[in-house]
Amino acid sequence: MTMQALYWDGNRLQVRRNYPVPRIAEKTAVVQVHVAGICSTDVQILQGYMGFQGVPGHEFVGTVSEGPPALVGKRVVGEINFACGNCARCQQGLGRHCPTRRVMGILNADGSFAQYVAIPVANLHLVPDSIADEEAVFTEPLAAVFEIVEQAPVHAATEVVVFGDGKLGLLCAQVLHTTGARVTLIGKHDAKLGIVRKLGVRTVLLSDWKTHQADMVVEATGSTAGLSVAMETVRPRGILVLKSTVARRHTLALAPLVIHEVTVIGSRCGPFSPALHALAQKQITVSPLIDKVYPLAEGVAAMRHARRRGALKVLLRNER
Amino acid sequence: MTMQALYWDGNRLQVRRNYPVPRIAEKTAVVQVHVAGICSTDVQILQGYMGFQGVPGHEFVGTVSEGPPALVGKRVVGEINFACGNCARCQQGLGRHCPTRRVMGILNADGSFAQYVAIPVANLHLVPDSIADEEAVFTEPLAAVFEIVEQAPVHAATEVVVFGDGKLGLLCAQVLHTTGARVTLIGKHDAKLGIVRKLGVRTVLLSDWKTHQADMVVEATGSTAGLSVAMETVRPRGILVLKSTVARRHTLALAPLVIHEVTVIGSRCGPFSPALHALAQKQITVSPLIDKVYPLAEGVAAMRHARRRGALKVLLRNER
Repeated sequence: MTMQALYWDGNRLQVRRNYPVPRIAEKTAVVQVHVAGICSTDVQILQGYMGFQGVPGHEFVGTVSEGPPALVGKRVVGEINFACGNCARCQQGLGRHCPTRRVMGILNADGSFAQYVAIPVANLHLVPDSIADEEAVFTEPLAAVFEIVEQAPVHAATEVVVFGDGKLGLLCAQVLHTTGARVTLIGKHDAKLGIVRKLGVRTVLLSDWKTHQADMVVEATGSTAGLSVAMETVRPRGILVLKSTVARRHTLALAPLVIHEVTVIGSRCGPFSPALHALAQKQITVSPLIDKVYPLAEGVAAMRHARRRGALKVLLRNER
Repeated sequence: MTMQALYWDGNRLQVRRNYPVPRIAEKTAVVQVHVAGICSTDVQILQGYMGFQGVPGHEFVGTVSEGPPALVGKRVVGEINFACGNCARCQQGLGRHCPTRRVMGILNADGSFAQYVAIPVANLHLVPDSIADEEAVFTEPLAAVFEIVEQAPVHAATEVVVFGDGKLGLLCAQVLHTTGARVTLIGKHDAKLGIVRKLGVRTVLLSDWKTHQADMVVEATGSTAGLSVAMETVRPRGILVLKSTVARRHTLALAPLVIHEVTVIGSRCGPFSPALHALAQKQITVSPLIDKVYPLAEGVAAMRHARRRGALKVLLRNER
């Protein structure tokens, strides 16, 4: 059995029409992908990140085509870290950090930019009917944002500043807003800021913004300048949150960190349950974050679109 | 009135014999210094840190010579940040981070390498009789170590690795050991490790040490190599503590921080009360950390000693 898949050989990205359909293995399901999302990490993979070769993609929603009978035909999303389940780390509940893990579309496992993808059954989450495919495909990046709330205390009195009005910043601002915290999103694009301003988030154009200090700052611009401004904005004994997709190419000067006794939290993948719950309850609005939907056959053009400066979410749809 | 003081003019360190005795001001006391301690920050000041000019020194124990009658004649130690007491930061209880603060011997305030030093009354702590001068002079650096326990959760099940067997590492290992945490101190000098090994702390020579991952890692070597090993030693979702005197000249690569979702805590000054309590209760042993005591008149030689690689604590004593 073969299928259509977007394939990265380390040098070139192309649509293959006769790529083998993943075979079912023990404790694994095969999912027919409806929609997949392109993430900044995918863009970085095409720049050599992780030395990955294969089918990229780790954001998806689809229907189980092979696997446990109770799941076949169900609509699912899936967590991207394939943990061993047996090591000390997994026993501690830190499977997302299992040292021998594979990661969908990133490390030793083909991803979701294909008609079918294989994934451990333990990683699957059912998608409630009230969530459309184009919303459900945001579960993975939204979960990564919910990780912030899991790692750091946020409450109604917490003053939060989020830097960056890209897709990550727009999700961060919304998720933190749902906690009741006083959230301000700072960005360069009034139209993008407008997406969350309509939802009650305070927004300020970077050019109009006067520095003041906040309890928590989330850096979501991905630029060295952004990182530096973010550090200046954290109050003494405050918290600076760095998300992996934007931070991992940078270094951080430690002087302000130690002088102001700032806590810096690195944050990567997150819990799917609160993300699905928030989507089902319409607490988070993701549709305005979609730039364009391409058919999988036009995956190369889609990836080119995703690499454009200022692009929001680009999706790949499988014609069924 | 004049006194003897060690003076740094930005280029040269010298003992002045006719330096003016500090005059008492509102809410301020003058303390006759018995013993002062030389800290790595003082060594850095002589390398240009903070552009400080004046009398360095921020570790001391002495007797109040002028000030509120109830305090005159009392033996005291003092917190080094002179806060305004009125700003939002001070009202939040973060006077150690007051934006207009002066800092004894570091920023806009003469320090303790002199016969007398001026200090706000609010910064003074009485020293119990059971604590000798040569122990009490460790209150300030010990308080800075107690800050770790205030910033991060430590309990009996916490596995802690401290890197560096200098004076900071030896204090860190002891303080964390008193919490019941499982502490390992890693260093290069068996004689120094022996100081805390006698107190029940597990110690390992760096050359014998096999990497494994700990819940909390304290970097106290001050070297870039140490920082890198420390980051490798933190488990995913663990805590890396950086103390200011060793960390502020470095930068940190953010990739491992975000991939392993590590929390990095910058830590500077700390609370005096638990430090004094621990010294009074003999929970912390500081005497073996003293390398040599010099009279203030030999302050230049004392500072040269403190700059030597591997030096432990060098003290300055005023002949009375």
